[in-house]
Amino acid sequence: MPGSEEFVVTPYEVKGRIDYERLRELFGTQELSPELLERVRAATGGDLHPLLRRGVYYSHRDLAALLDGHAKGHPFFLYSGRGPSGPLHTSHLVPFELCRWFQERLHVPMYIQITDDEKYWARGGLTREETASWGLENLYDILALGFDPKRTHVFFDSRSIAALYPLAIRVARKIPYSTVKAVFGFEPSTNIGLVFYTALQSVPCFWPSWAEGRTVPCLIPCGIDQDPHFRVTRDIAEGLGYPKPALLHSQMIPGLLGENVMSTTGDRADNALFLNDPKAVVDRKVRNAFTGGRATVEEQRRLGATPEVCSVWALWRTRFAESEEKFREVTDGCRSGTLLCGECKSQVLERIHAFYRRHAEAREKVKEWAESTIVTTAPKPL
Amino acid sequence: MPGSEEFVVTPYEVKGRIDYERLRELFGTQELSPELLERVRAATGGDLHPLLRRGVYYSHRDLAALLDGHAKGHPFFLYSGRGPSGPLHTSHLVPFELCRWFQERLHVPMYIQITDDEKYWARGGLTREETASWGLENLYDILALGFDPKRTHVFFDSRSIAALYPLAIRVARKIPYSTVKAVFGFEPSTNIGLVFYTALQSVPCFWPSWAEGRTVPCLIPCGIDQDPHFRVTRDIAEGLGYPKPALLHSQMIPGLLGENVMSTTGDRADNALFLNDPKAVVDRKVRNAFTGGRATVEEQRRLGATPEVCSVWALWRTRFAESEEKFREVTDGCRSGTLLCGECKSQVLERIHAFYRRHAEAREKVKEWAESTIVTTAPKPL
Repeated sequence: MPGSEEFVVTPYEVKGRIDYERLRELFGTQELSPELLERVRAATGGDLHPLLRRGVYYSHRDLAALLDGHAKGHPFFLYSGRGPSGPLHTSHLVPFELCRWFQERLHVPMYIQITDDEKYWARGGLTREETASWGLENLYDILALGFDPKRTHVFFDSRSIAALYPLAIRVARKIPYSTVKAVFGFEPSTNIGLVFYTALQSVPCFWPSWAEGRTVPCLIPCGIDQDPHFRVTRDIAEGLGYPKPALLHSQMIPGLLGENVMSTTGDRADNALFLNDPKAVVDRKVRNAFTGGRATVEEQRRLGATPEVCSVWALWRTRFAESEEKFREVTDGCRSGTLLCGECKSQVLERIHAFYRRHAEAREKVKEWAESTIVTTAPKPL
Repeated sequence: MPGSEEFVVTPYEVKGRIDYERLRELFGTQELSPELLERVRAATGGDLHPLLRRGVYYSHRDLAALLDGHAKGHPFFLYSGRGPSGPLHTSHLVPFELCRWFQERLHVPMYIQITDDEKYWARGGLTREETASWGLENLYDILALGFDPKRTHVFFDSRSIAALYPLAIRVARKIPYSTVKAVFGFEPSTNIGLVFYTALQSVPCFWPSWAEGRTVPCLIPCGIDQDPHFRVTRDIAEGLGYPKPALLHSQMIPGLLGENVMSTTGDRADNALFLNDPKAVVDRKVRNAFTGGRATVEEQRRLGATPEVCSVWALWRTRFAESEEKFREVTDGCRSGTLLCGECKSQVLERIHAFYRRHAEAREKVKEWAESTIVTTAPKPL
């Protein structure tokens, strides 16, 4: 198939039309098979989360072993993070939403890393005040998804460094410059903060094992573009006496402008729905969003549209279809030509607005206890 | 003069017979002239310290401007550090002794950095337990020189990271990998901790300015081999809104085995007098030390010996000649052939043993308050 390999996916760049199966092969990850999903369903009790059912998560590393351990009574913990360069948009919630669901079902601890140092190093245009204050704003949004205050722990890098650094010292000695250069494509002009950073990003994977003095496996739901970060972590884990983190990889969420990824870097604020967008802005962005529709209404009624390339269908798929019935109804209506784009957008907007209202309320409540989740001290000498 | 350029001096390597004037020209540092020394004498009141009088310190950067500021009532602070890879030896005391003297004369603050992280990164054979425990042992030795507990502050990296990191984040963004590669000669195999490290080594130069919210100049006495570290710091200082640190450079202290530097890396424990060497070991090392003497007693009485190449003369010069009269007596006796090496060694050993006894007592007392000097929190948000 010509062009199928003409894409690039790294933690710092995604371009081209991604062939996800080919990407999985290139990265050497495992398929999230129906059999494995059934095991997840059985372990969690009840239905699978829509992000699993609808194939947004499609790849993994070592999930089967993690489930084996869980079945034998070895509890695991969840880890995900956020580089606070600005407001969150809806697709940023994809890993956290899956974490929230795992925590609700299995009562497992969740560790969230807010990388206000890394974003300062990665984006020359941001001030420290900005990355620190976006860090806190982003944290409120994440916690407002419904995390359990008693089981949720936050590494806010600039404030949690005393907790992270003893382990980061050990991690950093294991990682030569050549590895990060190869994995992240660093240039001679890359600053030494960013070069060091992957050490700090690895630490949460091992931290609970250190704190508890026993092996605690780690599960990281993340976009597949972040897999290279944790390949470095996995390579050094055993040499440090810790288990390799397991990963669950999602596809990239397409942007509203019809791009591969809901990235807003550069002048692309309309590519995503920010959680702090006012109602009128959300309306405008969705009304202008790229769809899989046809050139004319007549043609669309006759031939149907293409949900797989549609940014609005991606909204339904990743969050806003409240049930599998609704998701099927939208998908079938789109494909058959009975649901036109204008009506589809009205329906999804209704749900987006409702979510924004609920989220704003939850976010206010979270502010009361968010600070208490930030870890500031090391559990013991290392 | 053939061979005058056949030496190498970097923070990680010193080899060849060093031509110090040529090295000063190569590094682009300024001469510590008699006029400038006279200004130091006037500012400190009384005699100059022997390390200044005897030319061990011979080069500087911006010392004149620092003295100008001091004369106008702008106080400065002292900064020096130690990478704790093992016990201290006598030549490690050279920068700290000068700091102690400046503090005694001018009542200025002293900041000491113990780089237990850096040594772990730089020396593959050391464990973290070793660098941390040597860090504390070395700190006792340093403080025992006579630092003022009220004016002395310690950054013990692994324990002080919460105090250092907010500023290190800002420093690190200013330093590209290409700079540390060029300055330190890093290889692709160099670990990312060591790559990052120079950011943390720069922080103490700016920390008091941050803490006090005003410009506080910094003076760093160090071996001239450490100058490249602080050239990086000086290059970024103004971009961060802080003054460039001033430097006072000493020559390298020759080792007992007749080498350029009292380094004990590898299998060279007999090259230095460790502060924890038992009396009998000190005796043996000095008795076996390389001297500038002649092949026979007769020849030495007739032609005299050469103090400048003698490791025992270096001991007199850097610490153990209690007065300028004694130092001249030893130097003249050596050169004229009236003082033979055996007698010279007996005399210096007497003084070394006395120093070790006094030092051991002072060291015990220091343990009571050493921990209280370790800075563990940031002064304010940054």
